[in-house]
Amino acid sequence: MGRWQADAPARLQEAAFELYTERGYDRTTVAQIAERAGLTERTFFRHFADKREVLFQGGERFHATVIGPVDCAPPSATTLEAVTAGVEAAGSVFPAPELVRRRQALILANPELQERELIKLASLAASLAGALRRRGVPDTAAELAAETGVAVLRIALTRWIDDPAERPWAVHVQEAMDELHRLTAERRVAAPASVR
Amino acid sequence: MGRWQADAPARLQEAAFELYTERGYDRTTVAQIAERAGLTERTFFRHFADKREVLFQGGERFHATVIGPVDCAPPSATTLEAVTAGVEAAGSVFPAPELVRRRQALILANPELQERELIKLASLAASLAGALRRRGVPDTAAELAAETGVAVLRIALTRWIDDPAERPWAVHVQEAMDELHRLTAERRVAAPASVR
Repeated sequence: MGRWQADAPARLQEAAFELYTERGYDRTTVAQIAERAGLTERTFFRHFADKREVLFQGGERFHATVIGPVDCAPPSATTLEAVTAGVEAAGSVFPAPELVRRRQALILANPELQERELIKLASLAASLAGALRRRGVPDTAAELAAETGVAVLRIALTRWIDDPAERPWAVHVQEAMDELHRLTAERRVAAPASVR
Repeated sequence: MGRWQADAPARLQEAAFELYTERGYDRTTVAQIAERAGLTERTFFRHFADKREVLFQGGERFHATVIGPVDCAPPSATTLEAVTAGVEAAGSVFPAPELVRRRQALILANPELQERELIKLASLAASLAGALRRRGVPDTAAELAAETGVAVLRIALTRWIDDPAERPWAVHVQEAMDELHRLTAERRVAAPASVR
């Protein structure tokens, strides 16, 4: 126990990321991860359910971090302002961009991990829509704003991890939101009266 | 052969939908589907790779139907107009709302099918972003417009299959797009200058 055990999760995560990158996710075993971290398999399973969980740990905390600010946004906040507050808050639980970049590369390389990530994001969108409904936002608007929020989060994430200037997370979220604003402002033709 | 075999795919699909609804997707076998349709398993496998494909058949055609109008939109069309043209075109390949409603209910009830559906939609968003880039739309805008387009498609779909007034697909797409427009128009507060 003591110092070495206290940082076991971080050491296991680091070891797992190294091995997944070196030999691929599929070809890495829990035994190898534990060995690389200088820990036992038993210690691994005290912190993670399986080797996939190393990549998805903290999901519930992430979820709560995004939903919290939406629930707490003042009634005067617009729907997209509430969503933006949630997406911006996500930044507070991200590890260093370098670690996120490696995680994204691993997920992109493995269909099973990709599916899991998509499921997670779909569930985040559903919770976000629920939070907006609690604010009194009607169904269609709530779902659309939630899906848009998750799209903004994904796009801000890819920009943030590849930003040579290393600008803060909130800047990337704001830029993606500004882009959404520009896209809709650009819209010129309304639906013909016949289909209304 | 002849008349009976010509409509084999439709009969197998109908039988599969019935059985998936009656006893659940997991507990239905290809043998049972073939029997219910009055056909052989061999005939089933002539039309579908497995029992999952019955629900996802036509995916490539759907894909092409959405991307085509984006590629063909006049240069004067805005990004979201091009996306809207693609999403509207999707309606031309949908079967009757009742069949789509049953399909969606089946997918929602099964995590494996849900994952497959999410992967399909993510791949549609990626193709849509690619089509927009070919139109000269910059990266961030292309990805955001594509993700938004898929969100609009999903929301329009749930509205369309549950619309008691049975209004056409294009009306639901337009309403979802109008909603997006309202959401962004509602946005009042710009980012503080400090994070720009």
